[in-house]
Amino acid sequence: MKIAVLPGDGIGTEIVAEAVKVLKALDLKFEMESALVGGAAYEAHGHPLPESTLKLAKEADAILFGAVGDWKYDKLDRPLRPEQAILGLRKNLGLFANFRPAICYEQLVGASSLKPELIAGLDILIIRELTGDIYFGQPRGRRTAVDGHFPGAEEAFDTMRYSRPEIERIAHVAFQAARKRSKKVTSVDKANVLETFQFWKDVVTDVHKEYPDVELQHMYVDNAAMQLVKAPKAFDVVVTGNMFGDILSDEASMLTGSIGMLPSASLNSSNQGLYEPSHGSAPDIAGKGVANPLATILSAAMMLRFSLNQEAAAQRIEAAVQKVLAQGLRTPDIYSEGTTKVGTAQMGDAVVTAL
Amino acid sequence: MKIAVLPGDGIGTEIVAEAVKVLKALDLKFEMESALVGGAAYEAHGHPLPESTLKLAKEADAILFGAVGDWKYDKLDRPLRPEQAILGLRKNLGLFANFRPAICYEQLVGASSLKPELIAGLDILIIRELTGDIYFGQPRGRRTAVDGHFPGAEEAFDTMRYSRPEIERIAHVAFQAARKRSKKVTSVDKANVLETFQFWKDVVTDVHKEYPDVELQHMYVDNAAMQLVKAPKAFDVVVTGNMFGDILSDEASMLTGSIGMLPSASLNSSNQGLYEPSHGSAPDIAGKGVANPLATILSAAMMLRFSLNQEAAAQRIEAAVQKVLAQGLRTPDIYSEGTTKVGTAQMGDAVVTAL
Ligand SMILES: CC(C)[C@H](C(=O)O)[C@@H](O)C(=O)O
Ligand SMILES: CC(C)[C@H](C(=O)O)[C@@H](O)C(=O)O
Repeated sequence: MKIAVLPGDGIGTEIVAEAVKVLKALDLKFEMESALVGGAAYEAHGHPLPESTLKLAKEADAILFGAVGDWKYDKLDRPLRPEQAILGLRKNLGLFANFRPAICYEQLVGASSLKPELIAGLDILIIRELTGDIYFGQPRGRRTAVDGHFPGAEEAFDTMRYSRPEIERIAHVAFQAARKRSKKVTSVDKANVLETFQFWKDVVTDVHKEYPDVELQHMYVDNAAMQLVKAPKAFDVVVTGNMFGDILSDEASMLTGSIGMLPSASLNSSNQGLYEPSHGSAPDIAGKGVANPLATILSAAMMLRFSLNQEAAAQRIEAAVQKVLAQGLRTPDIYSEGTTKVGTAQMGDAVVTAL
Repeated sequence: MKIAVLPGDGIGTEIVAEAVKVLKALDLKFEMESALVGGAAYEAHGHPLPESTLKLAKEADAILFGAVGDWKYDKLDRPLRPEQAILGLRKNLGLFANFRPAICYEQLVGASSLKPELIAGLDILIIRELTGDIYFGQPRGRRTAVDGHFPGAEEAFDTMRYSRPEIERIAHVAFQAARKRSKKVTSVDKANVLETFQFWKDVVTDVHKEYPDVELQHMYVDNAAMQLVKAPKAFDVVVTGNMFGDILSDEASMLTGSIGMLPSASLNSSNQGLYEPSHGSAPDIAGKGVANPLATILSAAMMLRFSLNQEAAAQRIEAAVQKVLAQGLRTPDIYSEGTTKVGTAQMGDAVVTAL
């Protein structure tokens, strides 16, 4: 079992170090190899996703990823910016299925913006298509407008697109995930405006015929953004495209109040996967030893489950995280009165001890 | 002053009737003419936006609009569905500037999903570009993919686009609105992924040079969806494109808990405007006399202010609405213990009395 370890920028190095510590404490044999990615790779090699890093990622069974990005790279040309590394990995490895659980941890109910009765016990699984849509559609660029409101003016454009097999495969992923949960899928589209998402709705409806035991609901993206606020617990599995999934999964994770705790997985059709926390690189607190490593540690658990076929080890990590929370240990982002404030490394050590 | 009255579907007729009642109670002279739109127009004339309705709308100084849509039209071909009426009006009248206030009414703080301290006093103005972006970009449709992940497969596609003058004019609207408020604009984009929104960001930055007294902040759309949940009061004026604006304005209005109270305005460059409540047609409660007419009544106030140049009358209506709320009158959607439940017509009558 080979794991590519790509810590990246900002707090990435600190939080990934703790996840590696936890993995090493398991009685399993992994080969782990690290490489630079994002801004760190740009500084060292002039590119956010150097050939050597991409090669390592391709050869590995799984990638443990920290986070990329920093304001200081904002002025770089787009192809050199840190985010291009994550987009490049998704594309090159075909990581089309992104799993983003939005879970409200019992001990952190108070950290949510929402009233406790609306959020306690929340457990949504957002499944976002990750290699299609307007993220990668061609053509795109700048040109002179030939029609529209201002013919002759300078304009920029992008192409949104989805093909039938791209929608089919993510729909299968969603229905299969729903079978292991409460058998309910909400497919989010904008079929009333977009050709792409009328097609999305049609294809998801077709695939649904193979899953008569699963309930399917269609919802417009604007309404989904509202219903997540109004009654988040009405959702179970949510499946949507790359762009809408970007927005809704972030909205949902912030609703939980547990964003420092939320892992994510991005899989391809051979179950090779990239695992990263749902939060970002937080350059403002980087290097201070205060970042919460739990989302990354829980991402490592997802990696064991989905790519390395080690369900028992995944559950051990998840139980250990529950235990440290029950012990009252909290990094500053989730601290509240009456709990014990700890730093990044202390939190990682506590998880190892709890294992 | 000529007002086109387009009640539409569902609760549209009931709520618009109350707004008309309020307008008639003012000591002003309007010519008001009604027409069918949406599903109602489709049933009568075979089209959601008949020529006669469009003609009336074009000739009027302002349009008072209810709501369109009903599940029963879901199976119709897209061009015949009720929503096409509102898209057609926006396009044909060039209503590019959509104003969507997200205000939390003091008396309704408890109706919000959010904790009172996060939401009380909220007053955001979302300015959404309404005639461009992927809503109207050509080409769009279905075809056989020539490249991408599955060449040869059936695919659907849409075109996102913005030209410089389209972005410039909405940016001016936002900066000018900010000058009358707290001089702070957040421009929402996805410049890290989309050519269109890198261009958006560049052009907004250029226009900003003419408004050195206004503070400009750029934010990615996924982050904006999160920050609205985490700290909504950190926003004042938000400006964004058609698609992102659709999602974020709905999210923000649901956050307030006051969605039954929120008006909207869509203006063109001659200040001709369409005024409608932020909520939808609610077919489930149509005809029962329980819908909240206040968002529509407040939309009529916006109409007086922006298109009819009657600021004093606008303020009279707004004060009257405040008064009925202070009196404890509530339609079922905003009812809470200790207040008085009233129906649609009673609420309209109470506003007239309060005038
Ligand atoms: C960094 C950015 C390109 C990325 C995205 O938009 O997909 C991020 O927001 C995410 O959700 O992983
Ligand atoms: C009905 C629909 C086409 C419309 C839109 O997407 O613009 C609606 O959601 C709105 O926000 O007015």
